[in-house]
Amino acid sequence: MNFLEERIARDGVVKPGNVLKVDSFLNHQMDVALLDQIGLEFHRRFAHAPITKVLTIESSGIAIAYPVARAFGVPLVCAKKSKSINLDGDLYTARVPSFTHGKVNTVIVTKKYLTHDDHVLIVDDFLANGCALQGLISIVESAEATVEGLGIAIEKGFQDGGHRIRNLGYHLESLAIVEAMDPVTGAITFRSQD
Amino acid sequence: MNFLEERIARDGVVKPGNVLKVDSFLNHQMDVALLDQIGLEFHRRFAHAPITKVLTIESSGIAIAYPVARAFGVPLVCAKKSKSINLDGDLYTARVPSFTHGKVNTVIVTKKYLTHDDHVLIVDDFLANGCALQGLISIVESAEATVEGLGIAIEKGFQDGGHRIRNLGYHLESLAIVEAMDPVTGAITFRSQD
Repeated sequence: MNFLEERIARDGVVKPGNVLKVDSFLNHQMDVALLDQIGLEFHRRFAHAPITKVLTIESSGIAIAYPVARAFGVPLVCAKKSKSINLDGDLYTARVPSFTHGKVNTVIVTKKYLTHDDHVLIVDDFLANGCALQGLISIVESAEATVEGLGIAIEKGFQDGGHRIRNLGYHLESLAIVEAMDPVTGAITFRSQD
Repeated sequence: MNFLEERIARDGVVKPGNVLKVDSFLNHQMDVALLDQIGLEFHRRFAHAPITKVLTIESSGIAIAYPVARAFGVPLVCAKKSKSINLDGDLYTARVPSFTHGKVNTVIVTKKYLTHDDHVLIVDDFLANGCALQGLISIVESAEATVEGLGIAIEKGFQDGGHRIRNLGYHLESLAIVEAMDPVTGAITFRSQD
């Protein structure tokens, strides 16, 4: 097991309905040292790519994407989930259903922060059905920028998002891929990635 | 002018209705090197305090609070804005009106992430009427934890939030206090803090 799998095995909590709670270290209380390590690991895995921007989506993607942007020394662009009065001008938009909140969000990036010269690494905390990632990919492609890859902390391997995105030919790296979770015993099985 | 005031003067955009757009470097596209500098500056200003947790609120607070938590070597706790199915158990809650989005949010922290032993530094990107900060203060006090201070990137000094919170006796540090903004000339006047 790698460092993130070990932490999930130790502190993750399995709930009925295929819910994996990692809110003690990843998305409610956050272990910044662990997140820094995640940032360095994505930097290692995408070191060959000429990344110019890291793109994520609010809000739980931000704490994963921050150390990644830091490691690459590039700006972090955070897609917004609804139109606020502080966002104006030309916008790239995509519609994204949210599993967690049970609604459809419009995801927005101001056009001037993604251009056709950009080489983008898309980063998020979770990948399940892949809707959020496909929304971000669609925004990068609307900008005629290049998707250099996608970095995910935790992929739910028993849902089809990862399969679908890899089949589209994108370079997707997930630090931990959960194959199965047992809400009775709490056991979590990871996909071997050696 | 300090480093943040200089950046606001250079890249901030004043819009009618007392809106200051800093989305090119602070809350939509984020300059991680600048945010790291903000983290170190808050660490310097609160170095005397025995901070055990940094508390912020999603989503634009996260990128400010991350480098602060990192500088102190403590966990970052991010208050959530609505009840999602991944948040359960005993919760601290506060109701917070949002100026930007024109609605009332319920702000939530899971009880186990704030205890009476905690010494909390509350961090956010903007302070205007202070409703978000008062919600976070109320949550810390519900936990019988100690509010050691509040660190804000940009305070709108012509709104009363900062005055109100200082009058309550809290140690509030704002890196930039905007006294006046002119949407016609774009001029931004900062309060002298020497």
